[in-house]
Amino acid sequence: MKPPIILINYKAYENSYGEKAIEISKKIEKISKNYGIPIIISVPATMIYKLSQEVELIIYAQHVDSVRHGAHTGSILPEMIKDSGAKGSLLNHSEKKIRLDEIHEALTRMKNLGLESVVCIDSYELVHPLALLKPDAILIEPPELIGSGRAVSKERPEVITKAVDEVKKVPGVYLLAGAGITTGEDVYKAIQLGADGIGVASAVMKAENPEKVVEDFVANAIKAIDKRQ
Amino acid sequence: MKPPIILINYKAYENSYGEKAIEISKKIEKISKNYGIPIIISVPATMIYKLSQEVELIIYAQHVDSVRHGAHTGSILPEMIKDSGAKGSLLNHSEKKIRLDEIHEALTRMKNLGLESVVCIDSYELVHPLALLKPDAILIEPPELIGSGRAVSKERPEVITKAVDEVKKVPGVYLLAGAGITTGEDVYKAIQLGADGIGVASAVMKAENPEKVVEDFVANAIKAIDKRQ
Amino acid sequence: MKPPIILINYKAYENSYGEKAIEISKKIEKISKNYGIPIIISVPATMIYKLSQEVELIIYAQHVDSVRHGAHTGSILPEMIKDSGAKGSLLNHSEKKIRLDEIHEALTRMKNLGLESVVCIDSYELVHPLALLKPDAILIEPPELIGSGRAVSKERPEVITKAVDEVKKVPGVYLLAGAGITTGEDVYKAIQLGADGIGVASAVMKAENPEKVVEDFVANAIKAIDKRQ
Amino acid sequence: MKPPIILINYKAYENSYGEKAIEISKKIEKISKNYGIPIIISVPATMIYKLSQEVELIIYAQHVDSVRHGAHTGSILPEMIKDSGAKGSLLNHSEKKIRLDEIHEALTRMKNLGLESVVCIDSYELVHPLALLKPDAILIEPPELIGSGRAVSKERPEVITKAVDEVKKVPGVYLLAGAGITTGEDVYKAIQLGADGIGVASAVMKAENPEKVVEDFVANAIKAIDKRQ
Repeated sequence: MKPPIILINYKAYENSYGEKAIEISKKIEKISKNYGIPIIISVPATMIYKLSQEVELIIYAQHVDSVRHGAHTGSILPEMIKDSGAKGSLLNHSEKKIRLDEIHEALTRMKNLGLESVVCIDSYELVHPLALLKPDAILIEPPELIGSGRAVSKERPEVITKAVDEVKKVPGVYLLAGAGITTGEDVYKAIQLGADGIGVASAVMKAENPEKVVEDFVANAIKAIDKRQ
Repeated sequence: MKPPIILINYKAYENSYGEKAIEISKKIEKISKNYGIPIIISVPATMIYKLSQEVELIIYAQHVDSVRHGAHTGSILPEMIKDSGAKGSLLNHSEKKIRLDEIHEALTRMKNLGLESVVCIDSYELVHPLALLKPDAILIEPPELIGSGRAVSKERPEVITKAVDEVKKVPGVYLLAGAGITTGEDVYKAIQLGADGIGVASAVMKAENPEKVVEDFVANAIKAIDKRQ
Repeated sequence: MKPPIILINYKAYENSYGEKAIEISKKIEKISKNYGIPIIISVPATMIYKLSQEVELIIYAQHVDSVRHGAHTGSILPEMIKDSGAKGSLLNHSEKKIRLDEIHEALTRMKNLGLESVVCIDSYELVHPLALLKPDAILIEPPELIGSGRAVSKERPEVITKAVDEVKKVPGVYLLAGAGITTGEDVYKAIQLGADGIGVASAVMKAENPEKVVEDFVANAIKAIDKRQ
Repeated sequence: MKPPIILINYKAYENSYGEKAIEISKKIEKISKNYGIPIIISVPATMIYKLSQEVELIIYAQHVDSVRHGAHTGSILPEMIKDSGAKGSLLNHSEKKIRLDEIHEALTRMKNLGLESVVCIDSYELVHPLALLKPDAILIEPPELIGSGRAVSKERPEVITKAVDEVKKVPGVYLLAGAGITTGEDVYKAIQLGADGIGVASAVMKAENPEKVVEDFVANAIKAIDKRQ
């Protein structure tokens, strides 16, 4: 993982699975290759294997359970997503919240398997506590802006700057910003405010021209990171 | 779906995914073909696609969420499992219990998609209420016997006979029995008591020779169904 | 329990506890006594004892857990609410949903203790399954109308008539209707459509003059029941 | 709150409510008065009011919900427990776990109301993250020892010493130790290892002579704290 970090969460949108998922993934892959920037896509568990065969993108699960091998019908284990081709997973997304002890246990398991982790959280006050658990990155998303089209970097820039201050208290954890990010400018602003990258979903998944949207994001992310250095 | 119904739940055992899952599935497939009996395997979401490519067995998910397309990070939709090659799903397994309204919504969604459903339940008193929701089958499993090696058909035969009485109040719903089933004799007894088939997990997944265990189950299931007619 | 059944759910409104709860309860008690009609109030667990000392109304809990005596920190047992003066409890309110096996276990426990039960549900398709568990009453509330001020009896009368048809399949279970009920006319209509009574919350708890609102409800409920006979 | 802190969790034991709860509370009160040491009792929500009238002990709830006033049937708000006479609450007990954002929100609400808080946790690695949220105290309890009769201070002393090291990273948060504490010696040892007090449940609630048990605990707690200074 290396900034700028671009994470696209497929959620359970109509194009998150099946042929449509492969189609949009190939468009994202094209931008990733053109710009030489790895892009993370976070996909339904059923699609991890197929997409890992079809595209050269960094494939994440959207959630993993923290239980171990055994009698756990319906659980998705870290070992299972790794076996299918995932390089990591989101954890604690606001649409799939888990408890602190579950985050802790899942992170421990994932580290042992060499899997990356992005832990999501709603409020900057919880960034430091979660950073102590040493995920690879924390993705902060004010829930009221998720899917709103109003970007966190414009509407609530202080959430990003405060979260950046908090995450710096623990070395080695990246900070991503998300919620409402729609334009390349939103991405640029987020990184300027100190974020190491961004998380998006609807802006890409519901776009008429996702290729163009991702290109705009990537170009601005590179520009913002370059300026920072 | 047609009796005798044999459902093997892979749970999250070490051989529920990866190469080991393909290996055991091929052994099960062999018995299925030799005896001309379809066998249901209920597998982790990450494995549905791969196994549907590798073996001619009836592939089920272990759980589906009842939400619809949209912003539902981490959810597994009926549409997703169907797209990956599943023919149906378990619902409400005692290791992944959901609420009545969720069972109802999931069943409605699955029927519209032509997916089969097996709803699990702990006690025979709840068989009639659940049968009213018209799943394809109900799998009754006294929780204290799950994984115990002490078969429901021997230890608590009255649970099966009562469940059979209850399920008959709603035409068109099959009754499977599970929990502790270890030998072909357990299977024979369960069907003799009125069950249309059985659900197993550890007896197969942890067997030294799973092929032999499944063969014993299938042969006895056929014998019991033949005798019934 | 005898129609017309009037159930007022205090929820967690500002006047659901403390002096304000006693004040509004005394107003409700006045109407109950004037009209000779018992009224059920469903109150926070912390208030059961105090209100049972202060007013002659039928006091219900808003929820009970189905666990038994033992190491269950934070659980509210049927025995606890009974000891404090409750005569029964709501179960499975759409704001506190529980699973089918939990409803079943809680009802079994409550019956043994002589406690009444009102099980809430969202859709009429689930009325028959729940009626089989033999609660004293089922309260049907289309969730989109709860707290809306648009009464179920006007906006979706077919929900009530269908629920009434369903509940009649099991003798001895009453059917209450709720969601959006605001005026005496709404109450009258609900009972005319076949309901044995109604459930309300915000219309009373947020009223400027709750006494007048409850009087309007009670008078219309009596009139509708009289007409039915 | 001031060391030595003695917290007795009534859980849902048979004597956690009703006359038996008053009886045992009066015995605890006697020791509290004799030794001039305040004792915290954590009681079912239904009993907060009654016990606050009957005994001079520090009464805690066993759990509070983090929601605000409004349509939240079945929720116990911080305002409700305060109104009934509670001085604080346990949060996140291993038998009533909640999420990190819920702990954070509940603590914020409780502080505004002047309520004390004891957050429970299973493993020392999570002590520092939780201490950052500034509860009054953290109670560490290895789950495998809860109710075991094998004291954390003897079986796993390193859990206490590590937790003490962690809690010191955030000034102003006390550390309590619990799980399996049965004798005064267990209490003495826990405080010697650096704990500011202890949490117990079954050792008192299931004792033949609870008065004697509590006296043994209190005497040893005082002795250990004296020695520390």
